[in-house]
Amino acid sequence: MNIQNLSREQLQERLGMLMQEYNSYKALGLKLDMSRGKPGADQLELTNDMLDPALLGDFKASNGFDVRNYGVLDGIPECKKLFSEILDVAPENLIVFGNASLTIMYDYIAQCMLFGAGAEPWAKQSGIKFLCPVPGYDRHFAILEHFGIEMINIPSNENGPDMGMIEELVKDEKVKGVICVPMYSNPSGITYSDETVRRFAALKPAAKDFRVIWDNAYCIHHINDTHDKLLNIFDAAKENGTEDFFIEVTSTSKVTFPGAGISVLAASDNNIKAIKSRMTIQTIGYDKINQLRHVNYLKDKAGVEAHMQKHAAVLKSKFDAVLDAFESTLAGKGIASWTVPNGGYFISLDVYEGCAKRTVALCKEAGVTLTGAGATYPYGKDPEDKNIRIAPTFPSRDELCKAVEILCLCVEIAAIEKILG
Amino acid sequence: MNIQNLSREQLQERLGMLMQEYNSYKALGLKLDMSRGKPGADQLELTNDMLDPALLGDFKASNGFDVRNYGVLDGIPECKKLFSEILDVAPENLIVFGNASLTIMYDYIAQCMLFGAGAEPWAKQSGIKFLCPVPGYDRHFAILEHFGIEMINIPSNENGPDMGMIEELVKDEKVKGVICVPMYSNPSGITYSDETVRRFAALKPAAKDFRVIWDNAYCIHHINDTHDKLLNIFDAAKENGTEDFFIEVTSTSKVTFPGAGISVLAASDNNIKAIKSRMTIQTIGYDKINQLRHVNYLKDKAGVEAHMQKHAAVLKSKFDAVLDAFESTLAGKGIASWTVPNGGYFISLDVYEGCAKRTVALCKEAGVTLTGAGATYPYGKDPEDKNIRIAPTFPSRDELCKAVEILCLCVEIAAIEKILG
Repeated sequence: MNIQNLSREQLQERLGMLMQEYNSYKALGLKLDMSRGKPGADQLELTNDMLDPALLGDFKASNGFDVRNYGVLDGIPECKKLFSEILDVAPENLIVFGNASLTIMYDYIAQCMLFGAGAEPWAKQSGIKFLCPVPGYDRHFAILEHFGIEMINIPSNENGPDMGMIEELVKDEKVKGVICVPMYSNPSGITYSDETVRRFAALKPAAKDFRVIWDNAYCIHHINDTHDKLLNIFDAAKENGTEDFFIEVTSTSKVTFPGAGISVLAASDNNIKAIKSRMTIQTIGYDKINQLRHVNYLKDKAGVEAHMQKHAAVLKSKFDAVLDAFESTLAGKGIASWTVPNGGYFISLDVYEGCAKRTVALCKEAGVTLTGAGATYPYGKDPEDKNIRIAPTFPSRDELCKAVEILCLCVEIAAIEKILG
Repeated sequence: MNIQNLSREQLQERLGMLMQEYNSYKALGLKLDMSRGKPGADQLELTNDMLDPALLGDFKASNGFDVRNYGVLDGIPECKKLFSEILDVAPENLIVFGNASLTIMYDYIAQCMLFGAGAEPWAKQSGIKFLCPVPGYDRHFAILEHFGIEMINIPSNENGPDMGMIEELVKDEKVKGVICVPMYSNPSGITYSDETVRRFAALKPAAKDFRVIWDNAYCIHHINDTHDKLLNIFDAAKENGTEDFFIEVTSTSKVTFPGAGISVLAASDNNIKAIKSRMTIQTIGYDKINQLRHVNYLKDKAGVEAHMQKHAAVLKSKFDAVLDAFESTLAGKGIASWTVPNGGYFISLDVYEGCAKRTVALCKEAGVTLTGAGATYPYGKDPEDKNIRIAPTFPSRDELCKAVEILCLCVEIAAIEKILG
């Protein structure tokens, strides 16, 4: 039943019925949180064995260093080796950091602001801009806004961002970069096609200090048996001599513990050198006990993949719950569309145009907290007010099912209200 | 026997004898490292029990938060409480960070550069300066130099820096702050007198965006039974309404594990607010598993003090070894003076004027690595070329005794060479 084909009378009648249902939910006084991509309690239990001190042996890293003491700026060798396998990047092009890739990205852009990326400091160049594939990750946009970098929306489809538009815009010297999640993208869950990656690698920006923040947060975060594959950006870049344009990051936040994982940066020789020269001033080294703990627990790429399958089992049941509810409640009504990702942490839901804010507000009133409408766009401004990021991971499956029922109801209420005007 | 009273002939004869001894040391091919304030292997063993996962219980912080997950920007409540006891600062004026107070200081100054400290960003004000009590900590100076902040030497005595000079210099609006270690100072081991602290608190700088980086790294790091006491800078500042001028930091790097401790910042309400607003962009939160591990192991201030006594026992034997050797080998020769600290990690050795570089080079050649001569001054330039930072903690006691023998020998050789001209 496509809502748009109903008469005014039928819509009014249907709205009355839906509002009755909505009010009965409201009366329950629920408190359900689907706002952030936080792993659920069941996922937190999966890695507890990593805290066994026996894994730390005699505290010696493979280079003989005592991991309890100061030193080793860029990470213990076995930890770099593990990430080298995961990202398919040489160990010498990796640096292991603290518990958050967000901090790596913030610090990298702060460094570009103050010291530049091989040219004048960004803070001294007025009117600089970044290209932001949308819908995207609100914390990325927050960093750019914080530093006063103007953001330009780049629409995306199932292959990634509109590369024609990016190729055109980078001819402007003021455009200093792109920030994106190329695999199981936040929030759409799509993975950039090989052609998209190749076109990124072949970009010819006017700015000599151009940088793409390639946030590969979900590189091993498959949910379905069908895995997406992302072309290695550095392999593609090498063919074009553009390695310096790319700063790749990832972390174990959604592999081991969100609050106590380790993060890593991959970059060209030139960029690694510049970053290390800043790091020697900023730190003596990151937590190497945690690095050794991670390596001795996860062992190698195969070990990581086996561990990720445990997460996938939990996540698949939650993603299916959301997708099944969308399919059975919203499909065919002409008021919503959504992505069906093979991995990552989110589903991107497009509601009836102009209805995202109202839908989120209705949910909130009924005790279901969603990511704020607009959050998936720079400055929190969704030009069509239709995108909502769905984060199914944190609630229990039962809570999630309840929350999605309410969400579907609110999507329809908001759409009918809009059509009725 | 004061060397300066010897005749040229006597000096030449003595030099020949000392060089013979020196060459026999050189022939041993030793490799001894006294360059950094790194805890020794014996100290690293003291905290291993903190890694027992039983200490983490059900992973819940006192506010009910699961420490394994994302969240809690400023530290779990019990961790703030512990540091509140240690620093005698209200928990709401504290933020718990990652494993390095060096990073807190770097990030704070980076923030002042890009966003200012309540006024124009420092990066936009040309010719800004910091006052640096000397001798001081090389990593402090490295941060300031990295950001292009001009450094001005402030001589110190047993009460702290020359406050008259500081009071005069802060009348220059370009002077934006001071960076110092007020307790068991690096490298002199002295603690600022109550009067010094009160004069800091009463400073009337021309710059409205004036900041003192109060690096209280050694606040609980006593070695002797006689403990120094440092006046609480925030208590003194409150009387003058100058709380916003002070940023205090400390860490557990030399309490638990140097590479895997936790660090903390104490500041006024205004500064905490400004720092948190930056942090919400930079991170979702620091490693809370490590925070809980620390609190449940150390328990409270008394627990920390008991733990520090174990470190003190190890350190006292090493400090005594150095001081005894200095006393028996160098005293009365008129070529060296040194501090006798009650705590901290260093002894400050002043050799014969113009001889620090030569002394360090002689040591190096004989296999003893010291902190570079000049390192205790901004830009690595000791105007009198006489200060050497002695770091007795890292070598074993046997290695240390050997290293100090060689050091004393080199001090005398360099002095005699200098006098002979």
